[in-house]
Amino acid sequence: MSVRAGIVVTGTEVLTGRVFDRNGPWLSDRLLELGVDTAAIVVVGDRPEEILRALRFLAGEDCALIVTSGGLGPTADDLTAEVVGRFQDRPMVLDTALEGRIGEILRPLMARWPDLDQEALLASNRKQAVIPQGAFVLEPVGTAPGLVVAPAADGRRGPVVVVLPGPPRELQPMWSVAVSSPLVRGALAGAVDYRRSMLRLFGMPESAIAATLRAAVDAGIELERLEVTTCLRRGEVEVVTRYEPADASVYEELAALVRSRHADTLFSDDGTTVDEQVLAGLVSAGATIAVAESCTGGLLSARLTELPGSSEVMRGGLVVYSDEAKVALAGVGAEVIAACGAVSSEVAIALADGARGALGADVGVGVTGVAGPGGGSAAKPVGLVWLSVSCGDGRRLTRSVTLPGGRSDVRDRSTTVALHLVRRLLAGE
Amino acid sequence: MSVRAGIVVTGTEVLTGRVFDRNGPWLSDRLLELGVDTAAIVVVGDRPEEILRALRFLAGEDCALIVTSGGLGPTADDLTAEVVGRFQDRPMVLDTALEGRIGEILRPLMARWPDLDQEALLASNRKQAVIPQGAFVLEPVGTAPGLVVAPAADGRRGPVVVVLPGPPRELQPMWSVAVSSPLVRGALAGAVDYRRSMLRLFGMPESAIAATLRAAVDAGIELERLEVTTCLRRGEVEVVTRYEPADASVYEELAALVRSRHADTLFSDDGTTVDEQVLAGLVSAGATIAVAESCTGGLLSARLTELPGSSEVMRGGLVVYSDEAKVALAGVGAEVIAACGAVSSEVAIALADGARGALGADVGVGVTGVAGPGGGSAAKPVGLVWLSVSCGDGRRLTRSVTLPGGRSDVRDRSTTVALHLVRRLLAGE
Repeated sequence: MSVRAGIVVTGTEVLTGRVFDRNGPWLSDRLLELGVDTAAIVVVGDRPEEILRALRFLAGEDCALIVTSGGLGPTADDLTAEVVGRFQDRPMVLDTALEGRIGEILRPLMARWPDLDQEALLASNRKQAVIPQGAFVLEPVGTAPGLVVAPAADGRRGPVVVVLPGPPRELQPMWSVAVSSPLVRGALAGAVDYRRSMLRLFGMPESAIAATLRAAVDAGIELERLEVTTCLRRGEVEVVTRYEPADASVYEELAALVRSRHADTLFSDDGTTVDEQVLAGLVSAGATIAVAESCTGGLLSARLTELPGSSEVMRGGLVVYSDEAKVALAGVGAEVIAACGAVSSEVAIALADGARGALGADVGVGVTGVAGPGGGSAAKPVGLVWLSVSCGDGRRLTRSVTLPGGRSDVRDRSTTVALHLVRRLLAGE
Repeated sequence: MSVRAGIVVTGTEVLTGRVFDRNGPWLSDRLLELGVDTAAIVVVGDRPEEILRALRFLAGEDCALIVTSGGLGPTADDLTAEVVGRFQDRPMVLDTALEGRIGEILRPLMARWPDLDQEALLASNRKQAVIPQGAFVLEPVGTAPGLVVAPAADGRRGPVVVVLPGPPRELQPMWSVAVSSPLVRGALAGAVDYRRSMLRLFGMPESAIAATLRAAVDAGIELERLEVTTCLRRGEVEVVTRYEPADASVYEELAALVRSRHADTLFSDDGTTVDEQVLAGLVSAGATIAVAESCTGGLLSARLTELPGSSEVMRGGLVVYSDEAKVALAGVGAEVIAACGAVSSEVAIALADGARGALGADVGVGVTGVAGPGGGSAAKPVGLVWLSVSCGDGRRLTRSVTLPGGRSDVRDRSTTVALHLVRRLLAGE
């Protein structure tokens, strides 16, 4: 039986969809790296009774550790520390030394906004220094301290609770401190060192992997020794397999079968993303890239500049949203647009070449399509996107796709298709 | 006591952080519109026992309705329908008519990938037509049907369960069908028609709102009649208040107090976002906009083209990631970069003006900064961003900010600062 943990994400803003929860998945991923299974992520509002019941639900799921995120702010609806105190049977006490340290942190903030009521600010933040008695304090990265809280020492067994603030840039470094604390290390002792391997494929439906998994069983591969999950993500099929080190050879049999059945669509078996492969491919070719994009409106450039180090290869981009911009910036012939329409192979090709020319890059990418909701026609429906990738030696890949979903799906998925075209061009296809 | 609902999001890919859950928050928001409180969103893996225990936890939370997302795909790890059948004490049966309809849906897919094993595909998808006996079928938008499943008719009380597929573009239209079904309408009968109002502020810390809420209590405003939550989102403070219609006057007192204390930072009291305000402001001014951005790498252009209708005002953008591109495309003087550095007020101003000139727009935006993780110095640390907004009549707003967080935080937050500068320029500030 592996060691299990649970995650409680608090915050009415998360529960009602105004803020996406980045912490639950991030924490779950970190736990997995430690060999710890996440039993569940429970998102609840800022109501103390519901936070308490979520903690009890996870305790009933045999979690040795529970991590909470959020509810440590200065406002009265931030109640997590108090609820965890109740859960662990520990009274709340003011830690005056901690209060002083929070005061020091606030000083520059108060200097930045001198018009604010300074006394009120300090009072708001005093609340953050009231903690369950005996809790281990994780020093604040923002203004909110985190906590590691064990059950009260009355012989009661139960999970250790790690209490972290909601902002990811505070939570993430504080988690690193928490995992090295003796309480957390004790709770997680005995976790199995699982391995996790990932296969990524592009250009096929998820059903095809289901068929391959059945073929694996027919071929005698002991799939029951592996935990295989498949999903569609941004247009790619991901196959993630978790297994104990002793079963590595079973995984290798499965990976070999996938390689043989899906050689044309398997593009990653080492966890790398297409974004990383494109960046690495450009760096190793000593090549630069530039983009001229219409329907994606900057998203492709943003994706190409997302990874640190991208400035070595990314020259820049042209967001040619209007036809005039396509002509003026990317040098697309006005007569080409008039004859073929802005969404056409001709314009995609001209955009790719225009991007190369305008930015002096080795590789150019052109994207033009109908993102919707308006602008579609019978001949050129919403979701139709033309893409072209070219380099100076005359090699070029051009294709159209008709992407499902709404405006944001079409825009996002188009960037995935474009990156795969670049990857294929760099691979010499 | 209001009507409550619960949400179960299934999928190891969501639980382990490889895919962000968009469905839980979206469903919670839809439920809120119907006057239904979400008790919790529970994210679990693809293990049937854990899905079952999550359903039981939510039933214990007095949920009249439970909505599940995911686990309806063709692979063997997709088990939600079966688990819901067990939860509601209903045997699983093959719906042959439904199987036929799924077969029709698959036909074009099979034509698109003729190399796939057609028989295996059909077998994979037959599984999707095996449903709990007596369930109401929601017709597939993709290939997976949804379900509405009541407790078996043995007099047992309990929640109605709506079973939806994971892809948002399938889930969302199918939810609309589900809510109009008699079973769901019955489960949600008696929901209170809450109102929800939102105040958005920019340029102040969350603590300042905490102080205002205490001042409201001191001023005799009956805050206990309102459910107020505050949060920080993309650099803005959001204050969301939910209340019964009879308490609208209490909310108006609170809103008036916020207006008087935060007149300089309150920018929205009607739910509009800064993105919507900028788009509306440009449309009503009959003005066009263009962008030249460096550290944001396309994200600002992408944000300005995100809303439908943006093509009316957005001319396009220059992603001038390299210094050469700043000179060649945006007309920044090479000597200005040499003298002041690429991250400087002078370059931000030149980018704003250059964007206007290159794209023939009325309003230009320039953004240049150090997104990190490399490239920072003592004088220009990671997080320093210079922004400038200008229009043809000579009006201009230029400022620098030092943003906290990592590379993606700095990039994202910069787009928020830029939009607020445009908003202020359009408002004549």
